[in-house]
Amino acid sequence: MTGLPMVVPEAGLPERVTIYEVGPRDGLQNEQALVPTEVKASFVRQLLAAGLPIVEATSFVHPKWVPQLADAAELMTGLSADLGDRARELPVLVPNDRGLDRALDLGLRHIAVFASATETFAAKNLNRTLDSQFAMFEPTVARALAAGLDVRGYVSMCFGDPWEGPVPVEQVVTVGKRLLDLGCQQLSLGDTIGVATAGHVKALIAGFGRAGVGVDRLALHFHDTYGQALTNVHAGLQAGVTTYDASAGGLGGCPYARSATGNLATEDLVWFLTGLGIEHGVDLQAVVDASTGMAAHLGRPSPSAVVRALAQSPA
Amino acid sequence: MTGLPMVVPEAGLPERVTIYEVGPRDGLQNEQALVPTEVKASFVRQLLAAGLPIVEATSFVHPKWVPQLADAAELMTGLSADLGDRARELPVLVPNDRGLDRALDLGLRHIAVFASATETFAAKNLNRTLDSQFAMFEPTVARALAAGLDVRGYVSMCFGDPWEGPVPVEQVVTVGKRLLDLGCQQLSLGDTIGVATAGHVKALIAGFGRAGVGVDRLALHFHDTYGQALTNVHAGLQAGVTTYDASAGGLGGCPYARSATGNLATEDLVWFLTGLGIEHGVDLQAVVDASTGMAAHLGRPSPSAVVRALAQSPA
Repeated sequence: MTGLPMVVPEAGLPERVTIYEVGPRDGLQNEQALVPTEVKASFVRQLLAAGLPIVEATSFVHPKWVPQLADAAELMTGLSADLGDRARELPVLVPNDRGLDRALDLGLRHIAVFASATETFAAKNLNRTLDSQFAMFEPTVARALAAGLDVRGYVSMCFGDPWEGPVPVEQVVTVGKRLLDLGCQQLSLGDTIGVATAGHVKALIAGFGRAGVGVDRLALHFHDTYGQALTNVHAGLQAGVTTYDASAGGLGGCPYARSATGNLATEDLVWFLTGLGIEHGVDLQAVVDASTGMAAHLGRPSPSAVVRALAQSPA
Repeated sequence: MTGLPMVVPEAGLPERVTIYEVGPRDGLQNEQALVPTEVKASFVRQLLAAGLPIVEATSFVHPKWVPQLADAAELMTGLSADLGDRARELPVLVPNDRGLDRALDLGLRHIAVFASATETFAAKNLNRTLDSQFAMFEPTVARALAAGLDVRGYVSMCFGDPWEGPVPVEQVVTVGKRLLDLGCQQLSLGDTIGVATAGHVKALIAGFGRAGVGVDRLALHFHDTYGQALTNVHAGLQAGVTTYDASAGGLGGCPYARSATGNLATEDLVWFLTGLGIEHGVDLQAVVDASTGMAAHLGRPSPSAVVRALAQSPA
């Protein structure tokens, strides 16, 4: 067997998908052992070389909250020295005005902000209410847009919340619409604890459609906690969504979720899309090499089925 | 969070699905360390008590080939003593006339035979050619039907083969049709090495449809080697198939596949179907308890995402 599936398209799916790689930021942010900046830079470069069109590189959050990403400016400076304008196109998470100042100082062009779809997670993660969280983003997003930057809006806990249980579709749509109204170009709808199933995904996309938000404004961000991430992508594809977040090697996970299983692995997504004949532009083996290197650095194997299968020698 | 997802149906899917549990047979057959018969019997009883409607209990194959299942008669005798007629309804794999004699002696009512969709696997697994394998089943199936038994026909390597690569749909349909022509009531189409993706699944089902074989005659048997098993179930549901094989805890795997990752875990399937609001009649936690007990006996954790998530304490 080669390392790729047979290609058999399914009728009605998009011809092309954009994979939004979040491994260096979302994947690493909860790692306790500090990863050296040069290892992170090498990881980002490998992911770009593998053909991933978008690699979210780091977060300009306060080091007190995410010590792992305290080297954000150093990382981006180093990448800019190597990659020039290509580095300045890499998106970074920016939680507030101070983070934006740092991104602007470095000449970065794409930022992302982070909202919660639930009251409890807004309180725990942002120390705000569901309503008052927007006051935190508003000036940041406005200044970023005025400076000509693109802004992505993450929405977390879009399907279930560990404290509140199932999250109503209309509540998620309300939060997402407010981010779009602030000027975000794209929403990333996150299943932070991995409880979404396929019908729920379609229902959420339909809810946004009823509110006038088309699939071209939506990205989907699934966690594989209950093994559902790829079926949720399948549902998203059938509903017409063409941007999917994934993390090389399945790095990452939510500290509030019940399991260590984290983000959808980029490799599992690439395998799936390849089998369906959907263009993605990514070299699977190159992503496996990148994530395997990072896994070796972190000292534990990837949870990705594709990585485990391809890492073994043929029968 | 409870241990179950929010229920949001997807339009157009079946209302009810039959889960065909293969853990005690397919799951255990390649385990090197012999599992005591009483542990197997307890496992079968737990799976039945969890609501699984069909539990394939063992195989009457020659002990030389599958030493783990050398206690088949002893297991079935013990289960009959406990469960009476319920035990005699449990299907068993029967490779030949001698196996059928043993099944008939015990008063069993459901058998399964095993065919290959490829020349190479027929040679390696059955020591036959693709064509001559049928001569092996024919008298066995005929005698079983004459005795009033139901016969299921497994077809392995229905999507890819580790030696031959992608397997043409028409080749699988030809093999499957021959099993049906012999009198098998149901085909179980196996993705033995886990390389199927969703479009391929729909293409295979459509191929059988063109040959006059409806979805009511088909079951799907996926392996999670590349993390694709549930998306393949999703595709199968959308094509109307209502019987899915699964193995409690994801026990098992093909010795010819590249990875240790084996059968689709019953728990992952139950979680998925529950989220879609599809009736299955199975108590998820009871299956987790059964497979966790077996995993402890075997000395390694389940690869199932759902088992791992539910085994952890809530946040």
